[in-house]
Amino acid sequence: MTDRPPVAAGDRTALARLLSQVERGTAEAPADDGAAYVVGITGAPGAGKSTLTNALLRVVRDCGERVAVLAVDPTSPFTGGSILGDRLRMQDHATDDGVFIRSMATRGHVGGLALAVPDAVRVLAAAGWPWIIVETVGVGQVEVEIAGRADTCVVVVNPGWGDAVQASKAGLMEIGDIFVINKADRDGAAQTRHDLASILELTDRRPPILDAVATDGRGLTELWAAIAEHRAAIEVSGELARRRAARRVDELRSLVSRRLERLARAAAGDDAWRAAEDDVAAGELTPAAAADRLLASLRAGDVPGA
Amino acid sequence: MTDRPPVAAGDRTALARLLSQVERGTAEAPADDGAAYVVGITGAPGAGKSTLTNALLRVVRDCGERVAVLAVDPTSPFTGGSILGDRLRMQDHATDDGVFIRSMATRGHVGGLALAVPDAVRVLAAAGWPWIIVETVGVGQVEVEIAGRADTCVVVVNPGWGDAVQASKAGLMEIGDIFVINKADRDGAAQTRHDLASILELTDRRPPILDAVATDGRGLTELWAAIAEHRAAIEVSGELARRRAARRVDELRSLVSRRLERLARAAAGDDAWRAAEDDVAAGELTPAAAADRLLASLRAGDVPGA
Repeated sequence: MTDRPPVAAGDRTALARLLSQVERGTAEAPADDGAAYVVGITGAPGAGKSTLTNALLRVVRDCGERVAVLAVDPTSPFTGGSILGDRLRMQDHATDDGVFIRSMATRGHVGGLALAVPDAVRVLAAAGWPWIIVETVGVGQVEVEIAGRADTCVVVVNPGWGDAVQASKAGLMEIGDIFVINKADRDGAAQTRHDLASILELTDRRPPILDAVATDGRGLTELWAAIAEHRAAIEVSGELARRRAARRVDELRSLVSRRLERLARAAAGDDAWRAAEDDVAAGELTPAAAADRLLASLRAGDVPGA
Repeated sequence: MTDRPPVAAGDRTALARLLSQVERGTAEAPADDGAAYVVGITGAPGAGKSTLTNALLRVVRDCGERVAVLAVDPTSPFTGGSILGDRLRMQDHATDDGVFIRSMATRGHVGGLALAVPDAVRVLAAAGWPWIIVETVGVGQVEVEIAGRADTCVVVVNPGWGDAVQASKAGLMEIGDIFVINKADRDGAAQTRHDLASILELTDRRPPILDAVATDGRGLTELWAAIAEHRAAIEVSGELARRRAARRVDELRSLVSRRLERLARAAAGDDAWRAAEDDVAAGELTPAAAADRLLASLRAGDVPGA
């Protein structure tokens, strides 16, 4: 887990540039992500995911592990480039060669987040980062799916009435391998633990539920131990291989969709495509009728090569 | 705006059943949504969107208008079916024939939310509901896009440092036609108004920023007036027609993607598709190589009819 990277890991500028190119679709991501272990951290906005991630980085570094963070969460202080600026920055790790932090906007990716995140993970893996933390907000169809595809998925909730229920409605119960009640020094932690356990019982699962106070580092060593334990367990049981297989198949489907759309455009021709869109826009054609028309050429097999 | 519905609007059971069938893909949605006016309400979880919607319903009903609500937000108390149940229910409107409330889960739709929401909107429009409020959470790539496609999009923020910045990072500045500072009786409302105005200035837009206290109904009449004013303005300027055109084109693209995927499966054959997925799952083939293989038959024009 402390293997030296196959490419110059020290060259952070080159890595950042490659990530940007892959995001814009001007460079291809490498094919494999097998060497890196991916930890997803998700939960509602305000649950303290970034603070927890930041505290976890310290524990990981103390163990001598190198770690990259991919923050996809628009509400995360990791995600830079905001207009008024963020107060919390990862100053702790700014001069640490063993930490690489990258934020991704939720918009503007060719093919959307469903393709952009696995692409970025593979770039980081190929650059030799053995641990990759993917922070996504636990609200939103695509974002929850991304977190659920991590090797180990950590769901962060807070004490307080309804938080476990909201996490359940957002689909987080099914994807969490480890649950963390962050801000556990506040009122209601016991109730939240009870709610979580009740809901998980209904889904027939028994993932660990940990307490943490990320702001003072409490519970972080235990979280790191739980991640290592989950990793060991799924490596032995074959679950890790199954997850990665499912992740690759997901990605195949996203890729096929993206390429099919390009293919359909090429088949119908730009003019026909534009005409159909114009007719739909003008309300002269329903989207369904336009789809029939555009796909007719594909059905007839009149598709240009390449 | 108070037209009688073309189908029996009183038959709520039939409407609910049709919505379920369309969600599951066992019935087709009607083609047009032109008769209904769609108001999107979005914002971060906890911003008070549901309370605001609930209060707005009262104002709308006092004006004699009939209104349907589509709640896509997993954190909304409108979205029923939660495991531990919600305390807040729309009891106020339970016996009101002029209100129809429907919640949609964020998962389990054929084609995803990007297709499920416009389908449901068209079902409600065809059933004669002249106003449709779509409540989505303002976090998540798909969810923000859905809200941005409404005829009038209302963005709800709260007083407090950073809320406007978070809304900006989530992409809400670009889509809001009206901004509401809900819980405006709390500290920081003036600062939030200032932040919002600063960010909007950078995007070169001047949408109205209203104050509201949804829990006691304050500011709701003004919100309804602002919605009516925005509606009148975009009807006159042609912007409404442009928005609806863009919405239909979006839907065409989603439909084409979904049909292409079915077509590609049919073209490659179920066996070939399964074999490719197996190889990808086993790591013997990269997703990109498998996509090439699966699409080869389409490229060669070897596609079965229909």
